[in-house]
Amino acid sequence: MLPLGLLMMADHLIDDEAEKFLGEIGVEIGVARQFAQPSDLSLFPAGVGRRQAFARLELADRLGHLEPFGEHVDERRVDVVDALAIAAQLVIHGCAIPLFSGTLGTGRGFKASRKSLQNRDRGAKARRVMTAEIHQLHGDRPPSLDPMMALVAADMNEVNSVILDRMQSEVPLIPELAGHLIAGGGKRMRPMLTLACGKLLDYPGRRHCKLAAAVEFIHTATLLHDDVVDKSDLRRGRKTANLIWGNSASVLVGDFLFSRAFEVMVEDGSLKVLKILSRASAVIAEGEVNQLSAQRRIETSEDQYLAIINAKTAELFAAACKIAAVVAERDEATEAALDAYGRNLGIAFQLVDDAIDYVSDAETMGKGVGDDFRDGKVTLPVILAYARGSAEERDFWKQAIVGHRTSDEDLAYATSLLHKHDTIADTLARARHYGQRAVDAIGGFSASQAKAALTEAVAFAVARAY
Amino acid sequence: MLPLGLLMMADHLIDDEAEKFLGEIGVEIGVARQFAQPSDLSLFPAGVGRRQAFARLELADRLGHLEPFGEHVDERRVDVVDALAIAAQLVIHGCAIPLFSGTLGTGRGFKASRKSLQNRDRGAKARRVMTAEIHQLHGDRPPSLDPMMALVAADMNEVNSVILDRMQSEVPLIPELAGHLIAGGGKRMRPMLTLACGKLLDYPGRRHCKLAAAVEFIHTATLLHDDVVDKSDLRRGRKTANLIWGNSASVLVGDFLFSRAFEVMVEDGSLKVLKILSRASAVIAEGEVNQLSAQRRIETSEDQYLAIINAKTAELFAAACKIAAVVAERDEATEAALDAYGRNLGIAFQLVDDAIDYVSDAETMGKGVGDDFRDGKVTLPVILAYARGSAEERDFWKQAIVGHRTSDEDLAYATSLLHKHDTIADTLARARHYGQRAVDAIGGFSASQAKAALTEAVAFAVARAY
Repeated sequence: MLPLGLLMMADHLIDDEAEKFLGEIGVEIGVARQFAQPSDLSLFPAGVGRRQAFARLELADRLGHLEPFGEHVDERRVDVVDALAIAAQLVIHGCAIPLFSGTLGTGRGFKASRKSLQNRDRGAKARRVMTAEIHQLHGDRPPSLDPMMALVAADMNEVNSVILDRMQSEVPLIPELAGHLIAGGGKRMRPMLTLACGKLLDYPGRRHCKLAAAVEFIHTATLLHDDVVDKSDLRRGRKTANLIWGNSASVLVGDFLFSRAFEVMVEDGSLKVLKILSRASAVIAEGEVNQLSAQRRIETSEDQYLAIINAKTAELFAAACKIAAVVAERDEATEAALDAYGRNLGIAFQLVDDAIDYVSDAETMGKGVGDDFRDGKVTLPVILAYARGSAEERDFWKQAIVGHRTSDEDLAYATSLLHKHDTIADTLARARHYGQRAVDAIGGFSASQAKAALTEAVAFAVARAY
Repeated sequence: MLPLGLLMMADHLIDDEAEKFLGEIGVEIGVARQFAQPSDLSLFPAGVGRRQAFARLELADRLGHLEPFGEHVDERRVDVVDALAIAAQLVIHGCAIPLFSGTLGTGRGFKASRKSLQNRDRGAKARRVMTAEIHQLHGDRPPSLDPMMALVAADMNEVNSVILDRMQSEVPLIPELAGHLIAGGGKRMRPMLTLACGKLLDYPGRRHCKLAAAVEFIHTATLLHDDVVDKSDLRRGRKTANLIWGNSASVLVGDFLFSRAFEVMVEDGSLKVLKILSRASAVIAEGEVNQLSAQRRIETSEDQYLAIINAKTAELFAAACKIAAVVAERDEATEAALDAYGRNLGIAFQLVDDAIDYVSDAETMGKGVGDDFRDGKVTLPVILAYARGSAEERDFWKQAIVGHRTSDEDLAYATSLLHKHDTIADTLARARHYGQRAVDAIGGFSASQAKAALTEAVAFAVARAY
């Protein structure tokens, strides 16, 4: 049974009857896209976010970039059965709800509109349909994060608890905006890595949960600032915080989360962890500035590009893994192995992201295809196409990237050039190379559930095509 | 003799003859607005900032918001005598050059154009005029930061050295942009406080120099982000970084400096200092978000306003002072005393800033008068005027602050209301109250040069009217 990852925030706790009802049709209540746990409900204290930004139906919000169900935002309660009605309605229209953002395998053609939430009959009627749809998705799925998520589910609850607790502030805008991004999406990839590496090392303590939350705060701060820099409108199918609350709020709440991350680390008290993560933060910022400078520079080399993604993406992956070795008090070789695992996984992850950006299957991808092209970002598919292109093709790239010629036809032509020179496929091949290095980096550890999960996570990262 | 605080960056070190020549007319070469030290020149290693952003004549740049002398920016050398020619030229036009930004007592009516810098004769001729002008400014000046600057001059050189060293990066844009703000202005008030408090405690070590640099990095990061939030064009008479390099670069370089601050603190290794400054950073961000939320909220109370400035300004002043007690390993009472000194000074400082913003003597202030009004910032002068105003006046304030009615005439009327209700004067009176509390907070320390300097710094902060 695939848990739906509904984000269900209710000021009144959901009662047993409702929970049973949900259970019957396979819906579990939990933090969005995390394995649901019985304790999840208690993670949502009454009044969190003050203005009830959480009292949205995450499920509906995620799908098809619908408007949040505004009429409920200010009502201070969400009725579980109402939520079901919507979920069911979506299913009726042919859309199955995945656990992970991006695995929208059958998500085509649905037209969920901003309907009333009071249609209980419809919800009841739809039960069987919904269940059936969900089972359809389950089965011989490609490599997945599921084993890793199962491995760390209990720890992740603690991480989520720290996250929810420490993003609070007397200034209501802070949990409101932070919650939009933190609770509203993402696989919690980085904290999950910290936790999984903890398992790999049989670390018996709890310190890594708090530190994993700090890592997620750093990541979230980076995302908030990135969206300002890139002037993004959408992230994972939701409106970006800068679009909703403005650039200023995004910048400042990012600063808050970043500071809060350091407060949490200081509470843990490991100077070594602080060193790793303060350095990682500086390297990330350096990488982001470097990327900004490289924007619209068609001459960017593969080496320069690798340096950028190593800094802006892989460094935090590496740090997230490495700190598990630090809290578990392992030797430097172990630290280095986990650093290498995370770093190579991070590079693979980013390479796949950069390839996916050009995969023009709008039905699978939703919006956002060709964003890098329009932003003049010189990523590996373009670098390779430019290197392999004819003089005319190079001229095209110059005009496109340097000269801002990025109409839809230009994008179509650009994509055709990428395919002509196999640069999407070759970018994915490069990703597999780094993936393999990640797997080999932890090759020395004896077999365990954790090792298997970490290995499958790499396979998942390089196999995903969305 | 008033040191001019010329920022003189030369790839070839200035020779003895030039230095002597400068000395004769009272010009010292140094970091802008810092006491010049013989060692200053060595602080500017060849190639710092790569694209020679430093190779500007700070002096000229500061006055009247001239264009930087662009022809020299790319030449990789600045001739001292050329600089003099300009300085002299400015003096000829009736402008004396102050040490501190803002003390432009006689800065009216000069029209220095972007002339050639090769006019040595003119420079030579102007010597006497210049000297005379400078002496004119000197004399029975009101309370000043001079004693504090003299007290910490040697330590500040070390701080500057750390700053210049640690703002470097392989990504050229980082030192370029950071240098614009860090080297280009400001009194280094916060690190100066750390150093002066170190003197007060007879701290014999050097750790506080590095930490003072970290404090300045945090402050600089905040300024960079503030200017993005406020969409500012000018800071201390110079173009803001966001105007020159764009918002994205300002956000990301701010992030870099912030991370670097933590790296520097981690190197020092005091968890207590890390706790104080990570907490301060979170509080500052909270205060900034709070201010953003309060923008255009005319009902903001004096208490709410005080909470905002306590967070966004006073917290870092307090932290800067308190960490001196931590490195000197003093007891909690001492920490608390220095915290209180810094906090009250910070509040006084901000109150005066907010009052000054409405002082409409454009000749004294230069640009930027009424910025808070146009931004809809509800500062104490407005809060008091709104509280004391008639129904009609309150309507005006609502229309202005909430309704964006902020034309020049509106500003003029607003200012007249502030004067009518004495709210500028009363804001300054409030500042003196906090200033007095700052002075009393360190009343228990036995008399010393440091205590006198810290006391005079408070007097300076509340007496300045620019």
